[in-house]
Amino acid sequence: MDLRRLGARAATLALVAGIWFWPVPAGLTVQTWHLFAIFVGSIFAVVAGALPIFTASVFAAGAVILSGTLSPAKAYAGFANGTILLIVIAFLVARAVVKCGLGERLGYLVVTVFGRSTLGLGYSLFLVDAVIAPAFPSNTARGGVLYPIAFSLAKAGGSNPDEATRKRMGAFLMFCGMASLTVSSGLWLTAMAANPVGAEIARNFGLKIDFVSWLVASSVPSLLALATLPVFIYKIFPPEVTKTPDAPSEARAALRKMGSLSTEEKIVAVTFLAMVILWAMSGTLKLDSTAIAFTGLGVFLATNVLTMKDIAQEGEVLATFIWFAVLFSLSAQLNELGFMGYLGERLAGALGGLPWLGAFAVLLVAYILMHYLFVSQTAQMLALFGVFLDVGVKLGVPAGILAFSLLFATNYFSAITPQGSSANIMFAGSGYLTQGELYRLGAIITAFLFILHLVIGTPWLMWVTR
Amino acid sequence: MDLRRLGARAATLALVAGIWFWPVPAGLTVQTWHLFAIFVGSIFAVVAGALPIFTASVFAAGAVILSGTLSPAKAYAGFANGTILLIVIAFLVARAVVKCGLGERLGYLVVTVFGRSTLGLGYSLFLVDAVIAPAFPSNTARGGVLYPIAFSLAKAGGSNPDEATRKRMGAFLMFCGMASLTVSSGLWLTAMAANPVGAEIARNFGLKIDFVSWLVASSVPSLLALATLPVFIYKIFPPEVTKTPDAPSEARAALRKMGSLSTEEKIVAVTFLAMVILWAMSGTLKLDSTAIAFTGLGVFLATNVLTMKDIAQEGEVLATFIWFAVLFSLSAQLNELGFMGYLGERLAGALGGLPWLGAFAVLLVAYILMHYLFVSQTAQMLALFGVFLDVGVKLGVPAGILAFSLLFATNYFSAITPQGSSANIMFAGSGYLTQGELYRLGAIITAFLFILHLVIGTPWLMWVTR
Repeated sequence: MDLRRLGARAATLALVAGIWFWPVPAGLTVQTWHLFAIFVGSIFAVVAGALPIFTASVFAAGAVILSGTLSPAKAYAGFANGTILLIVIAFLVARAVVKCGLGERLGYLVVTVFGRSTLGLGYSLFLVDAVIAPAFPSNTARGGVLYPIAFSLAKAGGSNPDEATRKRMGAFLMFCGMASLTVSSGLWLTAMAANPVGAEIARNFGLKIDFVSWLVASSVPSLLALATLPVFIYKIFPPEVTKTPDAPSEARAALRKMGSLSTEEKIVAVTFLAMVILWAMSGTLKLDSTAIAFTGLGVFLATNVLTMKDIAQEGEVLATFIWFAVLFSLSAQLNELGFMGYLGERLAGALGGLPWLGAFAVLLVAYILMHYLFVSQTAQMLALFGVFLDVGVKLGVPAGILAFSLLFATNYFSAITPQGSSANIMFAGSGYLTQGELYRLGAIITAFLFILHLVIGTPWLMWVTR
Repeated sequence: MDLRRLGARAATLALVAGIWFWPVPAGLTVQTWHLFAIFVGSIFAVVAGALPIFTASVFAAGAVILSGTLSPAKAYAGFANGTILLIVIAFLVARAVVKCGLGERLGYLVVTVFGRSTLGLGYSLFLVDAVIAPAFPSNTARGGVLYPIAFSLAKAGGSNPDEATRKRMGAFLMFCGMASLTVSSGLWLTAMAANPVGAEIARNFGLKIDFVSWLVASSVPSLLALATLPVFIYKIFPPEVTKTPDAPSEARAALRKMGSLSTEEKIVAVTFLAMVILWAMSGTLKLDSTAIAFTGLGVFLATNVLTMKDIAQEGEVLATFIWFAVLFSLSAQLNELGFMGYLGERLAGALGGLPWLGAFAVLLVAYILMHYLFVSQTAQMLALFGVFLDVGVKLGVPAGILAFSLLFATNYFSAITPQGSSANIMFAGSGYLTQGELYRLGAIITAFLFILHLVIGTPWLMWVTR
């Protein structure tokens, strides 16, 4: 083993031990503090390159239980979480879309319109996402629609999830998929489950946020992000293949060669369309998105579009399931034990005396940075939005500006870590992106979106909420 | 698709619809009745060959939720079950034991002693299991020890989980592994989690069951089963390779050729031994077996004995995880909604007027047959043992005989379906056995053990509980 990795492991152990044996801050239980040590340690191990995220999570699961920090039931709770299961099943569904050739066909269709450059393909993902977003209250389900398209576009460009070709187009497109969801989710009130809940909480502060007022407030920063983020990612993380002037005509030729839809493609097209429609209406009809995915998967299996041999190759999905469920459980418990609220209140308390604009900026930065500890956007919003809004208003920050800013941040900070949103997981787990790239790019685009919202969005919010 | 399968699917649909629209029996809710329809339908689909168990479970998950029969939280609860997670992690741990070569070495060692015939290898599994059983309150964890040995024995015999060679030795050995657990678990009070709980319940009926009185009561039927079951399985499900007179000397030669333990084998040997010791002491030290497995897996990953590439090939473990968790949740809910108790009481009520020996036999048969509906031995014991014991005593059956008989049945009926015990899952999911074989052999050996216990065990119980 190389020395760098050994050093990173020693540093991880030192960090965990250092926090573990540090005097427990007043207001926290020993149990909460120990959970914090293990959780921070596992995130640090991944960022520092000491362990892959799967290994770090497996150790964390063992450690929290064997040390008596969490009960087994609490540590394993994430495995039964419907959203996490949705990711698992959506991965298998995506495999069917790709396997039968429909993904390729969709990819070629997109290429005929946007395919003159890899950047064009990136924009096409952002556009498709933004257009379908208001109908999708689950951004994870929306990721389940975007992912097979991005995957097929990469494949069509000769980019596979291996070291040799992943950076040709795939790595760029996968990160565009994740980044796109951060923007589309903030654009519409109904594009992410936490948005309407946040609007409801804001009502306690005398704010009335509906579909239209949300759209007005989000329009300027979100549309600006939509216009600039793909090209920004393109600059900081350029694909190896950039110009593909002949791609549209090649794609047309390939489409002609593919001929009409095969039986398998028709089955997948009809089933997948039905799933998309049901996912979009799941809020209205009160249908469980995961159960819709289960049923669709069942259709693919019963019609032999997917076979048990295909499933047998999806061990990476199992790995993703395990690490995400474990980290999700730990983060949820950290929150439930009051650690998050404690941190928020401590931070807010330190801000007394600042002018409102300063307090506003610091609160926002703190809210965003704390997302390093959360494995769910909705969980952080539920845990901290009310606290931060309350503190900010007491410090003189106008409620409307702060509320919208925090709710938008709840969307645009989702890519700050690969596990920061369940909607990321398919892209992060695609094999096209390394953990190092995910953390680095996640931090950069979150900073980019923060500055964009602060500099352009805040004056706009001051004007629309005046 | 062949007509047979199409017919089986039509029959499944007809069965589900038939039960679904049947007038709901008094004493049950509509919800319970619908859950029963879906659960029976998915088991029937597997037995009739309409769908693989994975597909049937995936449909069942979608159906129970979309029809409003179960809430998503209840339908997904099984995914967070510690025992099910133990199976998942034990599968990955077993992979490490096999991959590093230690499994092969252990296999050769067993062969040098028992290897003159495949039947001898079968007996060696039963013996190892019976000897280590009193230290293992989790028969699933014990399966995690036996499975890599059985797998390595099969591999060493040139038998892989494919159609061409699976029946050479592997299919026989895997079923021996499952069958062995049905016997070893009943032999000792502490060999299965439900045994001491059952003894506790029996206390309400004036019975005092401790380690020694359990062993005395179980000794005759269990040791007889140990002596006869391997040869019985050998007769009804013969391996293609039976005599291997040169195998012991070949194994010794192979061991010499392997030389001393490699670094990886040492890591696995020490870690696995530590896991086995901790599993055995988990009851005393109050350690979670699953967390022990998680930690062991972490060691294998951190030392590169297992890599992420190995995990990526374990898609079948994901499939097993999903189908078992779904069926487990459905069965647990069927029980929680009172269906099982209802059935038990109905059956018992019909027995009034029978002589005690007749009532005893019918109660026992009913208890065993009802295990077709249960996806956990402990759950059935908790749900029905008290009810059946109560009814039997009222009908004049001696409490001691009935209590022991039901508790022994709770162990020996575990292989009646592949999902009848979490301890089965690794063997059933090994790829060596088809669903058809599992159901057929499961039914036959359960009948064999029932008759053995009834004919030999009952007189013995009459004598020891006199």
